[in-house]
Amino acid sequence: MNGAESLVRTLLASGIDTCFANPGTSEMHFVAALDSHTQMRCVLGLFEGVVTGAADGYFRMADKPAATLLHLGPGLANGLANLHNAKKARSGIVNVVGEHATYHLQHDAPLTSDIAAVAKPMSDWVRIAASAATLANDTALAVQAARTPPGRIATLIFPADAAWGEAVGAPESGAAPLAPVARSAVGADAIRSAVTMLRSGEPAALLLGGIGVRERSLELAGRIAAATGCGLVAEYNTPRLRRGAGTVHTDRIPNSVEGALGLLSKYRHLILVGAAVPVAFFATPGKPSVLVPEGCKVTRLAAVGYDIDAALEQLAGELGARTQAPARIAERRSGGLPLGKVTSESVARVLEELLPDDAVVVDEAVTSGRVFHGLTAGAAPHDWLNAMGGSIGFCMPVAVGAAIACPGRKIVALEGDGSGMYTLQALWSMAREQLNVVVVVFANRAYKILKAEMTRMGGSRPGGSADAVLTLDRPDLDWVSLARGHGVEAGRAEDMDTFIREFRRGLAASGPYLIELVI
Amino acid sequence: MNGAESLVRTLLASGIDTCFANPGTSEMHFVAALDSHTQMRCVLGLFEGVVTGAADGYFRMADKPAATLLHLGPGLANGLANLHNAKKARSGIVNVVGEHATYHLQHDAPLTSDIAAVAKPMSDWVRIAASAATLANDTALAVQAARTPPGRIATLIFPADAAWGEAVGAPESGAAPLAPVARSAVGADAIRSAVTMLRSGEPAALLLGGIGVRERSLELAGRIAAATGCGLVAEYNTPRLRRGAGTVHTDRIPNSVEGALGLLSKYRHLILVGAAVPVAFFATPGKPSVLVPEGCKVTRLAAVGYDIDAALEQLAGELGARTQAPARIAERRSGGLPLGKVTSESVARVLEELLPDDAVVVDEAVTSGRVFHGLTAGAAPHDWLNAMGGSIGFCMPVAVGAAIACPGRKIVALEGDGSGMYTLQALWSMAREQLNVVVVVFANRAYKILKAEMTRMGGSRPGGSADAVLTLDRPDLDWVSLARGHGVEAGRAEDMDTFIREFRRGLAASGPYLIELVI
Repeated sequence: MNGAESLVRTLLASGIDTCFANPGTSEMHFVAALDSHTQMRCVLGLFEGVVTGAADGYFRMADKPAATLLHLGPGLANGLANLHNAKKARSGIVNVVGEHATYHLQHDAPLTSDIAAVAKPMSDWVRIAASAATLANDTALAVQAARTPPGRIATLIFPADAAWGEAVGAPESGAAPLAPVARSAVGADAIRSAVTMLRSGEPAALLLGGIGVRERSLELAGRIAAATGCGLVAEYNTPRLRRGAGTVHTDRIPNSVEGALGLLSKYRHLILVGAAVPVAFFATPGKPSVLVPEGCKVTRLAAVGYDIDAALEQLAGELGARTQAPARIAERRSGGLPLGKVTSESVARVLEELLPDDAVVVDEAVTSGRVFHGLTAGAAPHDWLNAMGGSIGFCMPVAVGAAIACPGRKIVALEGDGSGMYTLQALWSMAREQLNVVVVVFANRAYKILKAEMTRMGGSRPGGSADAVLTLDRPDLDWVSLARGHGVEAGRAEDMDTFIREFRRGLAASGPYLIELVI
Repeated sequence: MNGAESLVRTLLASGIDTCFANPGTSEMHFVAALDSHTQMRCVLGLFEGVVTGAADGYFRMADKPAATLLHLGPGLANGLANLHNAKKARSGIVNVVGEHATYHLQHDAPLTSDIAAVAKPMSDWVRIAASAATLANDTALAVQAARTPPGRIATLIFPADAAWGEAVGAPESGAAPLAPVARSAVGADAIRSAVTMLRSGEPAALLLGGIGVRERSLELAGRIAAATGCGLVAEYNTPRLRRGAGTVHTDRIPNSVEGALGLLSKYRHLILVGAAVPVAFFATPGKPSVLVPEGCKVTRLAAVGYDIDAALEQLAGELGARTQAPARIAERRSGGLPLGKVTSESVARVLEELLPDDAVVVDEAVTSGRVFHGLTAGAAPHDWLNAMGGSIGFCMPVAVGAAIACPGRKIVALEGDGSGMYTLQALWSMAREQLNVVVVVFANRAYKILKAEMTRMGGSRPGGSADAVLTLDRPDLDWVSLARGHGVEAGRAEDMDTFIREFRRGLAASGPYLIELVI
């Protein structure tokens, strides 16, 4: 048994059965080992940003890591932007990255680079396997690292001679899985402090993030709100928020500094539950970075890696809230659909009306999608996934991973035309795997968020340099052709009537479908 | 004047007048500053790999750096693979990367990352501007670094508050350009050692690389060969090789270990002229890494950053070769073109026949293109550009930069279907700028180079995991649709007759044209 074989067997023994891959020559022994293990599902991405984004989406929906297979430093580099997003989302991923044979490194061959240095900024854990003999154990360590709550980016670099060398001493079925690290229990002090705030008589809110916006946490938070009258607020971006009719509602912190401070100014106490202290996405001259209103006290019930559900259970117990009935979102579907001119509000109405039960929405509609979140809460119950790291090119790759993790659910990818262009190769993986994804591309033909920013600063000259780097027209991108080029069926809509027809068509399709919605 | 304005003025004062850009919010003050300076040509790339690859192509053809504009850590990360290629090609580039305001960094906002750490593996020089007051001077240093021979990757990170702050003390026209570092002169020892080898009576060769394969160097090397009978060998990959009828011929070192050793085994002496000691692209069990035959002595006339032309002049003088007439490649154009079935050899014949005078060929045809180089030497004089770092996704972005640098020349981009998919967004920049590029995509619908590798290792099961990650069919990519989706006219050819018609059409077009050649 060679090292590559021991690597694959250890991944399988550790419960990793999905590998998003973009291999090269230095990973061929690993690919050969995969070939004889049909339990490992291999999904090819034609660009590494697709591979790492898919692993992020997979973790969010499967609650376990996938492996990625990446080719040397440049291959890993191409995957970094979506690893950045995954790291900020606290997704667990095991990156398996090939390296030159150890004795070849000194010769500075063309593809030589410092892979560990490339990995570090976007990884929580990095290791270079020393030899074939240690590779199985290194793999078990990588999986354990990736599974460490709330989830970590583990990057295992394996030199080619570790892959092809004899795995002396490695067990036949791979190294034994290492015991997973459990989520830490919240201390009594943290519970007490939250109780004190909630009983202070002053307005308080739970600020929820991480797994604190999943169904069970929301349920518990809703009971606490019913018992104490506290507010429920969710971070602006969350990795996987449960929403829709029958779910407990949270107010989303607005993206703007003014909006965030406006919402939070209602409260004198903020209790962090898997959330961070809210901060501005970017600094703006004369505006604060930290978005906690003056005089509002902040306490932390549970950091993002802690046992959030148990903490909320305990808190509910202390407050006598366990049997309270939480307020729930009412269903808002009426059958009436807006026709005519395309507006963001009309699109939101259609989403609320037509979103199928238990859909997964991946949201990167940037400018066009600002209002969607607020206007679609009454849809059928669904999960809503945001980019946590702010790096665009997140949506379609994450949709790939979510679809692989949840074959029975419909994935709705809300994509901007600017952001979609970073990782459009995800469309091909959707086509090859016949994934259950509807992609809606909002074609405003500009980096509209940047144009808004520029307008605030005093605008740019028509035809000037600023205009040249902020518009996506001349020529217009043709997303229907782009989709078909990748093997994905597609249609274009320029009015709501057509959009509704196209969206229904996409929802009914068994494979992927893309709609270019001109807005 | 704010810091961003002083940055732009300093770039212009230092002779940088082209900026390949993919900006975000944190770079808006820089974009605003660009807007009022029409001397700076701004070219938008819809993905950062296009931006950095274009800067590489630009440097190779313009012999001066362009600037890139990239958005924070993830934007830079997306550009790293082509920066890796550019660094290995010794291209000079000034990366200008936005950063959060210094006081905002502590809050770990979503897009926060360690940008300097992201930059380092693929940069020769990295600096974070401390403030608006230092930004102009930092910019002058960055340009000087990028211009340091043979060319360096300089990455300047500017915090948003350095961009919007008052540039106290910066001169009105930006900081004064810093004196360029000159190429070092080769020492008398190096010349003597080369003379001794060439006069030894034993077979010797000049191994040429870097700017040693430009027209002037080849001319001098050809005179030395005529005087001494030495061989002329070029590295397997070169940043910009002058070729074609009337040029001095070099033997290209083959890619395979056996081929390289076979060619070099003719020689007892190897004189490095801007070239490195030849090494294998990848290590292979049982084969050597260093490709110098046993008993062959190696000396270095000039390292890649040295004054190679002056060294060859001196050497020619010592050898009495200055007035020798070098052997030149004969024109091989006959008017006869191969029709019928598509083969690599037939395509090479067409290239040799139809390549226009002074064309620039960018070569990433991987498997299909292996024979092109050898079979097209008799074409009209042209430049041939290779990826130096081995990271695929190089070709179309480099073609963009070459076309911007040389508006009067026809750029012919030879692209694999696998490699083209990494940076296909380059097509849109070609369309927007109406660049003079013909792209030929060799559609073999596989990572064929990896399939060959796998076959050597014993093959993969049909429908198995290895097969799944090495083939690009199911579905086939439709490059004609992909091109049109980006606004580029395109045609498909499945036989030589159609290919010849399409290639002529592409050569005659004033803007970009793509041909999908099924092979």
